[in-house]
Amino acid sequence: MNKGRLIVFSAPSGCGKGTMLAEILKDERFAVSVSATTRAPREGEQDGVNYHFLTREDFEQRIADGKFIEHAEYCRNLYGTLVSEVDGRIEQGLNVILEIEPQGAMKVREKRPDAIFVFIVPPSIGELRRRLKKRGTETDEVIEERISKAAWEISQAEKYDYVIVNDALEDAVSDFFTVIRAEQLKQEFSGDIIEEVLKNA
Amino acid sequence: MNKGRLIVFSAPSGCGKGTMLAEILKDERFAVSVSATTRAPREGEQDGVNYHFLTREDFEQRIADGKFIEHAEYCRNLYGTLVSEVDGRIEQGLNVILEIEPQGAMKVREKRPDAIFVFIVPPSIGELRRRLKKRGTETDEVIEERISKAAWEISQAEKYDYVIVNDALEDAVSDFFTVIRAEQLKQEFSGDIIEEVLKNA
Repeated sequence: MNKGRLIVFSAPSGCGKGTMLAEILKDERFAVSVSATTRAPREGEQDGVNYHFLTREDFEQRIADGKFIEHAEYCRNLYGTLVSEVDGRIEQGLNVILEIEPQGAMKVREKRPDAIFVFIVPPSIGELRRRLKKRGTETDEVIEERISKAAWEISQAEKYDYVIVNDALEDAVSDFFTVIRAEQLKQEFSGDIIEEVLKNA
Repeated sequence: MNKGRLIVFSAPSGCGKGTMLAEILKDERFAVSVSATTRAPREGEQDGVNYHFLTREDFEQRIADGKFIEHAEYCRNLYGTLVSEVDGRIEQGLNVILEIEPQGAMKVREKRPDAIFVFIVPPSIGELRRRLKKRGTETDEVIEERISKAAWEISQAEKYDYVIVNDALEDAVSDFFTVIRAEQLKQEFSGDIIEEVLKNA
């Protein structure tokens, strides 16, 4: 059986990342990596589902032991991706998706150059603003802050392998699967095929 | 409008390359590059359709003028790909397919690192032998010669970007289009998209 691939998946908020992921995960060859964090669980959050909730001591020990692919501190809490979340499942043939911000993504790039880096963009910043306003849950000020953050994140898309515009959900999801299939057809990941073809004379 | 891409397309004989190309060319975004040659036209061959038939003098002058992307001599005849067959159509948004052998392909790689290199393999050498025998047009000796040549060519597949197994025609053609779409989603070819997204605030 072929090994799966590590997929780094980033998108500014309001780009429909959650809906896209839900669609992608209907395909059982895909799984998401659950992050570890030192922050306290919020109501309804389950250990091992939303996050792996760790004490700071435990988290820091695992950093020291090289158990993280990447980690970072936000608002006095540690967040990171455990190697154990990824490697076993890739060996089993699963494609493991890491939903992560651009800074974390670039740390993954250093350690895992074989990962596939996919960035999702909205059709335009104007459309992103309309989507955020439509939700009606945030003040104009908060929306503009999120727009600024999104604009910065989108400028980081140039560091990714693939850029997918999420205009129509169905097309964006289809483009995602297209990218993964093409990556499987890449020569460096199909070396066994050449060998097999030549062997079966 | 987006520019098209140069696609280098190689396959040993008996891999169904012709049938695949016929399917691909039904999509009007794709065109094949017509090679130039100094050999005499065979019966039924048309200038500008099967080949651009050139005199040796004309061919050599064009080499001197840098008008060829690649050229080679086989059996005392020159064969090559004219820049003019490729660049204008790429500018117009067409994906131009170069059907070429591995040696020629690697010369294109040097000059056109932006080209997409696709290699088609049969499911196995055994299956290739069955296909060649089924045609019933060649002696066993000729078939074994072709098998040896095919095996050498397949070993060159590792120098290509993508390897597609032509087992079921429909799947192989679908994989080809998948590769081209994924290449269009590559960040380095979609830089304009990022700019556009950020501009339309």
